[in-house]
Amino acid sequence: ALAASREDEEDKELRQRFMAPPVSGLRELRRRRRELRSRMELLIMETQAEVCRALAALDPGASFSVDTWERKEGGGGISCVLQDGEVFEKAGVNVSVVSGLLSEEAARQMRSRGKSLKAKDGELPFCAMGVSSVIHPKNPHVPTMHFNYRYFEIEEADGTKQWWFGGGTDLTPTYLNEEDAVHFHKTLKEACDKHDLKLYPKYKKWCDDYFYIKHRGERRGIGGIFFDDVDSPSKEEVFQFVKSCAKAVVPCYIPIVKKHRHDSFTPEEKLWQQLRRGRYVEFNLVYDRGTKFGLLTPGSRIESILMSLPLTARWEYMHTPPESSKEAEILEVLRNPKDWVH
Amino acid sequence: ALAASREDEEDKELRQRFMAPPVSGLRELRRRRRELRSRMELLIMETQAEVCRALAALDPGASFSVDTWERKEGGGGISCVLQDGEVFEKAGVNVSVVSGLLSEEAARQMRSRGKSLKAKDGELPFCAMGVSSVIHPKNPHVPTMHFNYRYFEIEEADGTKQWWFGGGTDLTPTYLNEEDAVHFHKTLKEACDKHDLKLYPKYKKWCDDYFYIKHRGERRGIGGIFFDDVDSPSKEEVFQFVKSCAKAVVPCYIPIVKKHRHDSFTPEEKLWQQLRRGRYVEFNLVYDRGTKFGLLTPGSRIESILMSLPLTARWEYMHTPPESSKEAEILEVLRNPKDWVH
Repeated sequence: ALAASREDEEDKELRQRFMAPPVSGLRELRRRRRELRSRMELLIMETQAEVCRALAALDPGASFSVDTWERKEGGGGISCVLQDGEVFEKAGVNVSVVSGLLSEEAARQMRSRGKSLKAKDGELPFCAMGVSSVIHPKNPHVPTMHFNYRYFEIEEADGTKQWWFGGGTDLTPTYLNEEDAVHFHKTLKEACDKHDLKLYPKYKKWCDDYFYIKHRGERRGIGGIFFDDVDSPSKEEVFQFVKSCAKAVVPCYIPIVKKHRHDSFTPEEKLWQQLRRGRYVEFNLVYDRGTKFGLLTPGSRIESILMSLPLTARWEYMHTPPESSKEAEILEVLRNPKDWVH
Repeated sequence: ALAASREDEEDKELRQRFMAPPVSGLRELRRRRRELRSRMELLIMETQAEVCRALAALDPGASFSVDTWERKEGGGGISCVLQDGEVFEKAGVNVSVVSGLLSEEAARQMRSRGKSLKAKDGELPFCAMGVSSVIHPKNPHVPTMHFNYRYFEIEEADGTKQWWFGGGTDLTPTYLNEEDAVHFHKTLKEACDKHDLKLYPKYKKWCDDYFYIKHRGERRGIGGIFFDDVDSPSKEEVFQFVKSCAKAVVPCYIPIVKKHRHDSFTPEEKLWQQLRRGRYVEFNLVYDRGTKFGLLTPGSRIESILMSLPLTARWEYMHTPPESSKEAEILEVLRNPKDWVH
């Protein structure tokens, strides 16, 4: 009876801490509390709540809508969205915990990354979970931020489980502010350095390579970290690393929002922001692996996947900013990524 | 001397008729005047000029910018763009005449459509030309219109040439107007019927199937005609059919613009237009074969390819129009395409 009431207390505390009840249910998560997928699910739930609360505290007029959804084929998610606030144009923080059979297309995409997935009767049971978020502020002096931390398991024909983690946090400013860029990268570097000094340089470069809009010859933003298919040195160690990264999201970004949310701006600066939002849409719809995976997975929730798109965007034919302008300054960095910390 | 001066006169007349000198040059086009690719190049140049003039006449304050561009790898194009006019938000009419070697990716895409392309030392010389256009008006009661007519030649290893035509014209209204829908489809049907009564029903269905935004379960618009890989009954006959379609663009669309360009509209109607523009972007960047081919072809002119994107677009999380609203009415037709003429 004592144990049961302690569990009830725990449940109550968790329910208050999270934005909604976890997809797998608190009882089930407790039953398999030592399994990594349970600990990861708690981590993504905590991250969602932490980030939502930090953002909401900066935008007092607005609040997050919370939608929980189920996926017919297995699993579900919790989407928290703040739209048309005073500080944020659109901010989404999404958790999903999805399982089922991998679609043919999704398997093909993974094999093309070098995975040998041996299917049993053409079927590949999988489990994928993650937290992902895009924050588009209104003020052009406050950058857009994206992060995503995810865990994947696939069961092959012989019963062996492939698993890996992926994720990253990256910043997309409309105008360059070097101090902000250094703060952002430094915070990420510190999170990485606790685990292995090789991680930050490797994942910083991976981020610059990944968020490349090939047809424009530009990166989407000034980077951060990005990694995928990470399955060494051990499940536990990678999880601890991912946890450090997830905990770094708020200290990375929130100070930058606080610093600039009341900056004044001109209509021309707002216009440049809208054009950069257009590039953001181009990257997400043409190149982003997560978006593509989502669009290809039957029964996935489109509104949550496309939550990453800005509220508004603009495309002008042949827009070129004048030389030595602030617009040209950020373009230069998007074309030739810089090292912000050493 | 008489012949030469007649040719000079012809040159002068063509130069006045076209928006810019043709990519292949008038002399070269005259030299090979009996070849289909020369006649097609003249047709796309004429179509460009006809459409631009018809649009400019409706938007007296605005004018088309004309850019001619060359492609390092061979060929070039002429892009005519009207931006931020009184009637049109963004109207682009683009001609391109491109030749060179097919990229590996582009060849893969074509093979996936069932073409057996036997390459010589991995190289496939090709020639592609076309006129393509997207017209985004400002007023939400004037629909967006798109058309594209193109001709393709590929030389295989044994020297045989594969050729085909593709194209279509389709309408994307923000709100449904049945009279306009009937006029648009009827004009296209008449152009098709002159050649073969089977063409309109077949290409109408192909259009509904092609412009399908799978992840939304909606078509991009209310259709029109679409065809690709058409290589029978003969080059001459297909060319004549394509010519009829190209000549139908102005009578299809211009009366609709004239009818509605001064209609009054509310901020809510403008907002719905912006959300529909977002779907237009989704289709073009995620599914459109022409856009994908362009992004994959090295040295292609990105500004001309992405000219099809609207000036502004909007994405709201979980936007659902109320039942029985005008917004729900158009959605119904986008989900379940109708026959507009019999």
